[in-house]
Amino acid sequence: MAETRQWQLASRPVGEPTAENFELVTVDRPEPDDGEVLVKTLYQSVDPYMRGRMRDAESYAEPWDVGDPMRAGVVGEVLESEADGFEEGDVVTGDLLWAEHAVGDADELRKVNPELGPVSTALGVLGMPGVTAYWGLLDVGDPKPGDTVFVSAAAGAVGSVVGQLARLNGARVVGTAGSDEKIEWLTEELGFDAAINYKETDDLSGAVAEACPNGIDVYFDNVGGPITDAVWPRLNEFSRVAICGQIALYNETEVPTGPRKLATLIEKRAKVEGLLVSDYQDRWGEALKRLARFIQEDEIRYRENVVEGFENAPDAFLGLFEGENIGKQLVKVAEFDG
Amino acid sequence: MAETRQWQLASRPVGEPTAENFELVTVDRPEPDDGEVLVKTLYQSVDPYMRGRMRDAESYAEPWDVGDPMRAGVVGEVLESEADGFEEGDVVTGDLLWAEHAVGDADELRKVNPELGPVSTALGVLGMPGVTAYWGLLDVGDPKPGDTVFVSAAAGAVGSVVGQLARLNGARVVGTAGSDEKIEWLTEELGFDAAINYKETDDLSGAVAEACPNGIDVYFDNVGGPITDAVWPRLNEFSRVAICGQIALYNETEVPTGPRKLATLIEKRAKVEGLLVSDYQDRWGEALKRLARFIQEDEIRYRENVVEGFENAPDAFLGLFEGENIGKQLVKVAEFDG
Repeated sequence: MAETRQWQLASRPVGEPTAENFELVTVDRPEPDDGEVLVKTLYQSVDPYMRGRMRDAESYAEPWDVGDPMRAGVVGEVLESEADGFEEGDVVTGDLLWAEHAVGDADELRKVNPELGPVSTALGVLGMPGVTAYWGLLDVGDPKPGDTVFVSAAAGAVGSVVGQLARLNGARVVGTAGSDEKIEWLTEELGFDAAINYKETDDLSGAVAEACPNGIDVYFDNVGGPITDAVWPRLNEFSRVAICGQIALYNETEVPTGPRKLATLIEKRAKVEGLLVSDYQDRWGEALKRLARFIQEDEIRYRENVVEGFENAPDAFLGLFEGENIGKQLVKVAEFDG
Repeated sequence: MAETRQWQLASRPVGEPTAENFELVTVDRPEPDDGEVLVKTLYQSVDPYMRGRMRDAESYAEPWDVGDPMRAGVVGEVLESEADGFEEGDVVTGDLLWAEHAVGDADELRKVNPELGPVSTALGVLGMPGVTAYWGLLDVGDPKPGDTVFVSAAAGAVGSVVGQLARLNGARVVGTAGSDEKIEWLTEELGFDAAINYKETDDLSGAVAEACPNGIDVYFDNVGGPITDAVWPRLNEFSRVAICGQIALYNETEVPTGPRKLATLIEKRAKVEGLLVSDYQDRWGEALKRLARFIQEDEIRYRENVVEGFENAPDAFLGLFEGENIGKQLVKVAEFDG
């Protein structure tokens, strides 16, 4: 019987995850039942939200069990189909396993059109991060021309799209990132008006104030923690805060503490709202169509940080917490020769 | 020339305000210019937000200067009018001084109809606190029948109206207060489904969970701090948090710290919004008309905690931070014989 490899959760991390939390296991290659397809993984996504699933705690993402394979966004090629509408050779994307091959329910897979761009983008700018940026900014953040939009983790898969959409929407765009290379990409290539290297800044509050002379109307928060502490005091009256992620806090072993800032919201009548892309399932295609056009017109640019080889998937994931990636962090598992 | 007395800010408090921060001063009674009226104070309001004005920091309420008279919501009788539409003997309300007599701009005063209820209610249930409760709950909190509405400082001027409006709106209503007498008033008289004496509870989180078996859909937050820490984890998906006050934090000398809870908002796609009643100037009358009818029909009840004598105004204010008042805290300055 054919075999395949998958990464399983070997143990739950305490604080920062390490390589020991993952185990590479060889298993029988599964076969599709009625309504299912067998997918050969081309690219696998690693995302900050996965840290939550490694924890044994109720969250919006169900925890993974120790000893079970982990799940991930995957782009792959259909090897066998037992489902109407899918054929061998189709490129599909969906939530599958950290595995070289996996079986998926046809209802939970989307076909990828390879003519829209490299198939890997179905995990990035033309996938979950892109849609998150699109509806998170436009529906929750609701920027108006002339607004100042501030985005943290601005060089990440979500943040880089948020910033460019905000620019297209007529906003002044300011972001934070953790290296000079990222800062240069944001300001030279993506059209950010200003960008702050938070790792090189002693006075984050002062840097935010200087970069946002008219205050902040929309804050798209991917990070939380000290960057949020520096941003909130600069919020304008009737500003909006979209909370998309809090990666600065995900590896804390104790409940993290910080200054209590809710009184700011009274003074500013600001609105803070949490955001999950799964609430936009019905408007997924609308966002993708628009993003694809912006990419074609070179109005939105993207980068991918591709780690080669399935055996390096845990390293790619761990790199997220070091802020190593520019743009979307991916693992290339097999060559696409379509 | 006639004289009058006023309370001036003698010094800025550090931490909890004390009697030394206030000075009772006798001054010439002012005379109204064109467009102004001279008002004899009947009742003066003391409110938590005044703590912010004693501080030398920018806020939504401008800071008072040391050596200047302080300002307050007042109900009074017109002694002299130089303004069209106001006559001697009219009862008016507005933002005037901590003073026995003060001059006010006619544009900034509202006439009080003594037939709607005792004139003191123009500072409470039929005044700023009532309107805050009305629009804060209905516009920001937006409760639906069957929702659980949680209100902190539930026995206060704002909270007691919030809870009763939520009950009328078909919600399950739960609140916190700081004495058994208050708890009894809330559950026996005002129709709260449950109330928690936070001063007598070792396990606030557990008490909130027990009182809200279906979670919390609307949290009307007057207090902040540890009560908010206990409430947020119980927020339901798509719940709303109206931040009206953070009295638990107003006397802190350092920036108060607490657990970072913003990730909760992602999981729950909850919305948190700050609230200032001044944004509802145009809808003030609408709220008052409705509240007056509910009071007439005994659907909404209120209490006032009246401190007698102008010389006791600072004590009445300081009592707010001890949680002494049930309902609206007032200072009675002169008898109304209208």
